Order: sequence, then structure tokens, then C-alpha cells
Amino acid sequence: MKVKDVVYQLESPVEQLESTVDSLLFGNGESEVSGILVTFVASQFAIKHAQKIGANMIITHEGIFYSHKQNDQVLINNGVYAEKLELIKNSGIAIYRFHDHVHKYTPDLITEGLIDKLEWTGYLEKHKQTSSILNIPPVTGEKIVEYVKQKLSIPFVRVVGDLSSKCSRIGVSVGFRGGGETAIPLFEKENVDLIITGEGQEWETPEYIRDAGAQGKKKVLIMIGHAASEEPGMEYLAEKIKSYFPAIQTTFLSNNENLIHAK
Amino acid sequence: MKVKDVVYQLESPVEQLESTVDSLLFGNGESEVSGILVTFVASQFAIKHAQKIGANMIITHEGIFYSHKQNDQVLINNGVYAEKLELIKNSGIAIYRFHDHVHKYTPDLITEGLIDKLEWTGYLEKHKQTSSILNIPPVTGEKIVEYVKQKLSIPFVRVVGDLSSKCSRIGVSVGFRGGGETAIPLFEKENVDLIITGEGQEWETPEYIRDAGAQGKKKVLIMIGHAASEEPGMEYLAEKIKSYFPAIQTTFLSNNENLIHAK
Repeated sequence: MKVKDVVYQLESPVEQLESTVDSLLFGNGESEVSGILVTFVASQFAIKHAQKIGANMIITHEGIFYSHKQNDQVLINNGVYAEKLELIKNSGIAIYRFHDHVHKYTPDLITEGLIDKLEWTGYLEKHKQTSSILNIPPVTGEKIVEYVKQKLSIPFVRVVGDLSSKCSRIGVSVGFRGGGETAIPLFEKENVDLIITGEGQEWETPEYIRDAGAQGKKKVLIMIGHAASEEPGMEYLAEKIKSYFPAIQTTFLSNNENLIHAK
Repeated sequence: MKVKDVVYQLESPVEQLESTVDSLLFGNGESEVSGILVTFVASQFAIKHAQKIGANMIITHEGIFYSHKQNDQVLINNGVYAEKLELIKNSGIAIYRFHDHVHKYTPDLITEGLIDKLEWTGYLEKHKQTSSILNIPPVTGEKIVEYVKQKLSIPFVRVVGDLSSKCSRIGVSVGFRGGGETAIPLFEKENVDLIITGEGQEWETPEYIRDAGAQGKKKVLIMIGHAASEEPGMEYLAEKIKSYFPAIQTTFLSNNENLIHAK
């Protein structure tokens, strides 16, 4: 099995995208795959881990040099970039960015993976393009916070709104989809009580929720962190890859715990 | 004193901007000012508070309808927007957006206000366009976290990096300037040990810091929250306005505590 065969398999469920950040960033499509490491972002640690376990292909969701698209201004004379680049080149590891396609799966595989990890698949009402709607048995926002933290093994979340209010209709919107453009219409048009998202601009949805609260309209936003919201989807993807290519050792590497802490 | 006179005074230190979000969003420039409320964002609560204290002019830093620039897609058939709009119109309060100009003061008045609130003005090395550099007596990241929380009266911050490392060279970068484009060059070119910012994309600077750490280069990022990073500047502005217009009752309203909580 070659690197290009894995890429072909991963992209095949999606029609050709006009514009995409997904590509083989490093390595050769003709290389034989010795093992695959699936991770949220191919960090310095992840690359070394791939070397250690003998995986010569990494599938990364986020950009590996600190921006969604390559930011040359940041990378010029950047010592951390230079050292990581040298590590990658010396390693010979193929790094494939798998972001846009996996979000374009029907349904979005990253969202599906989060709902699966939350064990809420049975409560699904519908998948929308950038979010999904669930109807769970009514429970306080407080309990949902506890549940999400426990299911995802995360030490903290950020919340806005009145956690004592009972919530039943839930919007799930992964990654940086917590901004007003995605989240506010879910409250207004889909009438959700609570949204679980990764991150989003603090002056958008949080301020909407505060105004709504001052008007007696109770809404809750839970920001679980970008990585925490998308790692379950990458773990879910790793399981799919295992079923596609049972002969190849595929490993999921979590790095969420190291990312951001509340103090 | 008329509304337009206050606006003229506030914009006068800055050359005319080619493009700006700053403007009189509501009200009439010819109205006599009965009192000024200065706040991070003119929330539903802030507008009612202005009514209560008899202030007929609000100076808001952020956009009042949940986006930096008006987002019509979010506002169509939006019940929270409609109710807030009615409140504003019925109140007759003038609302002036003061964002770009105040950041263009020399130095940026919002940054200056934060440094003043932290009582770090004596440690200033230089102001740059979107950040400032300080040299403080060496102390652990942990101690800086405690100090910042105490000085700003905030319940939590988010951190990335090794807090046990001693930090002396500090970058201060308010608002949404925690992204890679602003923050990473501060670490690389200005050699700061630690950056204090409001917020920023989680896959940018945090991932840079993690890679740097894996390479043995210790850096720390403290994300104190957007409002927490800019409210001190608006409070500082309120003091300036009091000195410009001593006859007018000027009040600063903090709303940071209600914004986002860690759970």
C-alpha cells in the first residue's frame, strides 16, 4: 500500500474540491506505508512519536506550521519552524493534511466522531452542513458540562449563560465554528438551548447569549476547546482507516491534554 | 457639550482613518450630553444601566450586534437583535463605537490601560504597533498568572507552556492579537519569554509553543480573555474623558465577570 493509495481512499467519498488546504505536505506518494499516525496536528512531539513506532505517514487535521494556510511572515527566520522542518525532512515521513475533505464527508466525519464519543448518536435529529442538532432528555447545563468533561476526559471547558436552565435541544458545532455566523442562527432558527463548540470569537456568540439572558431568553454556550472538539473525530477516522487497511498499523495520538490549561 | 464634540475630542489625536468601524451608531451628534457610559460592549444590560444613571451617550469598544462589522446574515429574523434595537431606539441614547481610533493612539490607549492596571508602566521597554514589550524582574510563569489574575480581578486565565520557567521579557498584546501573526514574531524576533493576550486561534500560537517546548525552548502564553485584556483600557479612557469634560458625569461599566467562566 502506497501513500497515494491512502490519500485516494480518504478523499474518495468527497467530490473534487475547487479549493482546499488538503495535500501531501511532505513525502512521496509512491512510498510504501509502514504505519500511519493519525493526530489533530503533526506537532514536533507527534513526528518523533511516529518515528518511534515506525509509522512513516502522518495524517494531520490542522496545519503543521501554526496557521490554517501557510503564513510566510511568521515562518521567516523562525527557529522553531526551521528545527521542525529539519526533523521532518530527516525523518522522511509523509505528512498528509486532511482537513477540508473530512469536514465535507456526509455527514462531517469530525462532527460524527464527537457525537459518537459523547454517546449521543441515538439523540441525533439532523446533520446540517456545519453543525448537528440533537434532542437529549432535558437536563441542566451544569450536568451537561460534567458529562462532556467526563466523556472527553478534559479538565475544563469555558461556558457562557445560565447553567441552571434545563437544556434538551443541543447544537454541536466543532472547531472554530463557535462564532456568531454559525452559532447564533442555531439558537434563533433551530431553537437550540445549548451549543457545544470548540472555540470562537469572544465578542460574538458570548455577547449574544448575555443579551439574550438580559432579555429573559436562556441560552448556553460551552466552548470545549478546538482540539477537544475535533480529536474525537480524528480518533474515529483512525478506526475507519484500520478497517480500510487492516494490514497497516494505524495509531491515533491524542495531544489535547497538553494544549491549553485553565489556571 | 454635544455628542459630536465628544466624538471630535476622542478622534482628534489620530489622523483620519481611510477605513474604520468607528462611528455614531445611534443617536444624534447635535444632542446635549447628559452623561457618558464607557464600556467594553454596549450590551442590553449596559444600555439599561445608562438609562438608570441618566447617561445619554454610550462609548462602546466592540460592535454591539455580535460581530466586528455588521453581519446581516446573523441579524435577519433575530429576536435578540430586534428586542435590543427597540430598546436602543426607545432610549434615545447615542452609541458611539470607539475601536480603531483608540488602538491607533500613540501609544495604543487600550494597551497602555492594561499595562497601567498591571502597574507595569515602569518596566516598559517599548511600544510597538500591536504590542508592547516589558522587562520585569525575573519570576516564574506561575507567579505571573497569579499576579495578573489578582490585578485584573479575573477568576481564571488559559495558559500554554511551562509555567515553572522564569520569565522576564514580557509581550503584551491585547484583544484578538494572540494569533500567530502577532504573537509568534514577538517570541522569535523580540525574544520574549511570555505573552499576555486576550484571545487567539488555538491552533496557532499554542501549537508553536508546544513545538518550541518539545525543542527545549521555553515560552509561555497567557490568554486572559478578550474583555479582560481590553476593559482596563476602556476604564483608562473613562478617566481621560473625565479630565477632558469635568462637567459631564462619566461612568465606566465593567462586564467582564459575566462573560465567560471556566468549569
